[in-house]
Amino acid sequence: MHSDPWEVLRSLPMGERVEITAPSGRIWTGTIVPRHELSGARILVLKLETGYNIGVRIEPEARYRRLGPLHSPAPGSSSGGPVPDAPPSGSWVALLTTGGTIASRVDYETGGVRPVKEEREILEFYPEMEATGPVHIIPVFDRLSEDLVPDDWVVLGEKIVDAFRAGARGAVVAHGTDTLGFTAAGLSFLLADLPGPVVLVGAQRSPDRPSSDGAPNLQAAVEVARRAALGEVVVVMHAGPSDDRFAIHRGTWVRKMHSSRRDAFRSRNGPPLGYLEGGDLRLDLEVRPPSKGPARVDGPLDGRAGLLWFYPGLSPQKAAQFAHDLRGIVLAGTGLGHVASSHVPWIREAVGRGVVVAMTTQCLEGMADPYVYATGRELAQAGVVYLGDLLPETAYAKLLWALGRSSHRAEVERLLLTDRAHEFQLRHQDREAP
Amino acid sequence: MHSDPWEVLRSLPMGERVEITAPSGRIWTGTIVPRHELSGARILVLKLETGYNIGVRIEPEARYRRLGPLHSPAPGSSSGGPVPDAPPSGSWVALLTTGGTIASRVDYETGGVRPVKEEREILEFYPEMEATGPVHIIPVFDRLSEDLVPDDWVVLGEKIVDAFRAGARGAVVAHGTDTLGFTAAGLSFLLADLPGPVVLVGAQRSPDRPSSDGAPNLQAAVEVARRAALGEVVVVMHAGPSDDRFAIHRGTWVRKMHSSRRDAFRSRNGPPLGYLEGGDLRLDLEVRPPSKGPARVDGPLDGRAGLLWFYPGLSPQKAAQFAHDLRGIVLAGTGLGHVASSHVPWIREAVGRGVVVAMTTQCLEGMADPYVYATGRELAQAGVVYLGDLLPETAYAKLLWALGRSSHRAEVERLLLTDRAHEFQLRHQDREAP
Repeated sequence: MHSDPWEVLRSLPMGERVEITAPSGRIWTGTIVPRHELSGARILVLKLETGYNIGVRIEPEARYRRLGPLHSPAPGSSSGGPVPDAPPSGSWVALLTTGGTIASRVDYETGGVRPVKEEREILEFYPEMEATGPVHIIPVFDRLSEDLVPDDWVVLGEKIVDAFRAGARGAVVAHGTDTLGFTAAGLSFLLADLPGPVVLVGAQRSPDRPSSDGAPNLQAAVEVARRAALGEVVVVMHAGPSDDRFAIHRGTWVRKMHSSRRDAFRSRNGPPLGYLEGGDLRLDLEVRPPSKGPARVDGPLDGRAGLLWFYPGLSPQKAAQFAHDLRGIVLAGTGLGHVASSHVPWIREAVGRGVVVAMTTQCLEGMADPYVYATGRELAQAGVVYLGDLLPETAYAKLLWALGRSSHRAEVERLLLTDRAHEFQLRHQDREAP
Repeated sequence: MHSDPWEVLRSLPMGERVEITAPSGRIWTGTIVPRHELSGARILVLKLETGYNIGVRIEPEARYRRLGPLHSPAPGSSSGGPVPDAPPSGSWVALLTTGGTIASRVDYETGGVRPVKEEREILEFYPEMEATGPVHIIPVFDRLSEDLVPDDWVVLGEKIVDAFRAGARGAVVAHGTDTLGFTAAGLSFLLADLPGPVVLVGAQRSPDRPSSDGAPNLQAAVEVARRAALGEVVVVMHAGPSDDRFAIHRGTWVRKMHSSRRDAFRSRNGPPLGYLEGGDLRLDLEVRPPSKGPARVDGPLDGRAGLLWFYPGLSPQKAAQFAHDLRGIVLAGTGLGHVASSHVPWIREAVGRGVVVAMTTQCLEGMADPYVYATGRELAQAGVVYLGDLLPETAYAKLLWALGRSSHRAEVERLLLTDRAHEFQLRHQDREAP
């Protein structure tokens, strides 16, 4: 019989590095730090390599590896509560433009909306943007967001890194809302050692309309980029009908949930990180603090990945064909992460060829979990990696990144299961039995 | 210059049948009935062939055809407010079982949940089911819902029709929750002339668990089937944490939005039709009243349809390959219904071959609308049919049904755009400019 891993882990010295593998297959690597008093029993607090602190419940079936003491001290981590204004590493904010409604105006010939191509036009529409400090505009693309591809995320990431290296305090990315959630997730995995916030922002209504949200959203994004003590990628958009309350969403948690409402962006499985309300900046959840830098792009991405949503009537042949030239595929399954059992053979065959097959839930909230129903267990046995509460879009972005890091299926799967950008929410209270 | 269609339509006699084509391409066919006082200007109220009353705003660009007077009186339509108990056409309710958690128990060998195969087991678990009257159990399938395919919807529909023809007051379908929304939409389009409610119900937790919702959900579904003056397909599930409040969702509006919560089912773009709360049955929206019958299955379905969710990086080649052997495909586009402009060529080519390409929004709320952005207009010009506020799943079910009714693309598109089961919500206040 193996002994309880908690008995060993609780006695390890602070500063020792460990790798924990939960019974679900989820892996955390980090340095042991002191527990909060409220953490309760069997919770090990780890400082992840990304700088996050995370509480990991040590189940009796968990496995661990000791990785020795940490040589250099990990960066500090800030906790919830109001965030003090961080010392600026530079006085200016970079505004990178990519196109989309926030950089659009009505084309009076067609009556529709077209992206603007001139930096001058943007400044004309948003004269108030520099009210609280200088903003340098860096045009990157002038495309609607549905025309951006993952390789563009790398280009954008490099421009963001350039801005930080040139001394920017924070970076704002003005982006079409259609695929803003995808880009936010992609940048969350790509960017490392951020010395300040990267804030994606969009507009649901064009600046010609009385109900335009472009100016207030942009103003709020610049404020968050200038003031928040954050070293991660977030999305700032209207939190509700008010023009004075904005939600700060973690880039891996957020999804556009309405085609046209100004508060269309919602964090899934829980609240946003915080709010900017009446000029007050508040972070309610633990965030990644600014890094000492220098910022870098931790690429490349490997585009040989896909995302397929299951539906009744999807034939195994069609799904297999969809996956046939891919190194990895994310499935958006039903419920806790299921597809018809007729799909198990092609999945097993694909996994045997080295293809990574990952599972998420098309419900969008809750989690993919293989341990409740026979279908899930059968899929897990066929080699499907269950990605818990990751949104399908976030899982796809992470897969592109993980495939870029390794050519081995097992290592890609390990990366997928390892928390990198606090993308797993670990809300076990939601993981209720059927 | 053409004259204003409203001037002609407002003067037509009650009882005249007309076909209205809105500027968006949406089509309504029905009989003119008196307007409510609150309907306001330019609203023509039509009784659809399905028995619904609907208010259609007549834009100056609308077109219409006069179809002559109606020969037989249309069935009556009930409005919002409390629904009186309908006179029973039979004293019993049919309970059709298909498998899923609601008909599941824990397999003590594996610790997971497996469907039960014995009718007897179901009655053992739910002894209270016949408290308010007789329930006849009709086993149809014993599969988890992810293993059901659209042809199974037709089989299920035929069993429901048989039950009504044998004198059932209403029908309850116990169904796994994973694909319950798909089946509800499929049955909404397949079933016609229903003399009573068809109530789909599931359980998110198995009957062995203290938190099981199987018994209360089933009891509520039987109550709605027995008492509601409804001639349509609905879903009855927990409305929140209480075991005494259940939402009655229209079958075409509902989606599973959480992998495990008991109140996972949500109507999109608006509230449910009504509630069963503390034994009180309340319908807040206009519903289709019971038909004189006889009930019938208005099939067949044509399975040569697919559903594809767009994402950044989806190559046009892969999408074209996905569609190549299909007669129709529903795209879940971004925002107001967009895909990358690189996809326009394959879409134009597919439409040229007679393939129906329909657009919905992956936001799930709001609507697909081609008239706001250049991308939408380009896609509409390539022949994409925009399906407004239909959920991707509902649009897919409707496409299977429409393809079964006609071999001509134009006729399939006309059917897709024509309201059949009150699936379009017409909440124009949500159709806000960008």
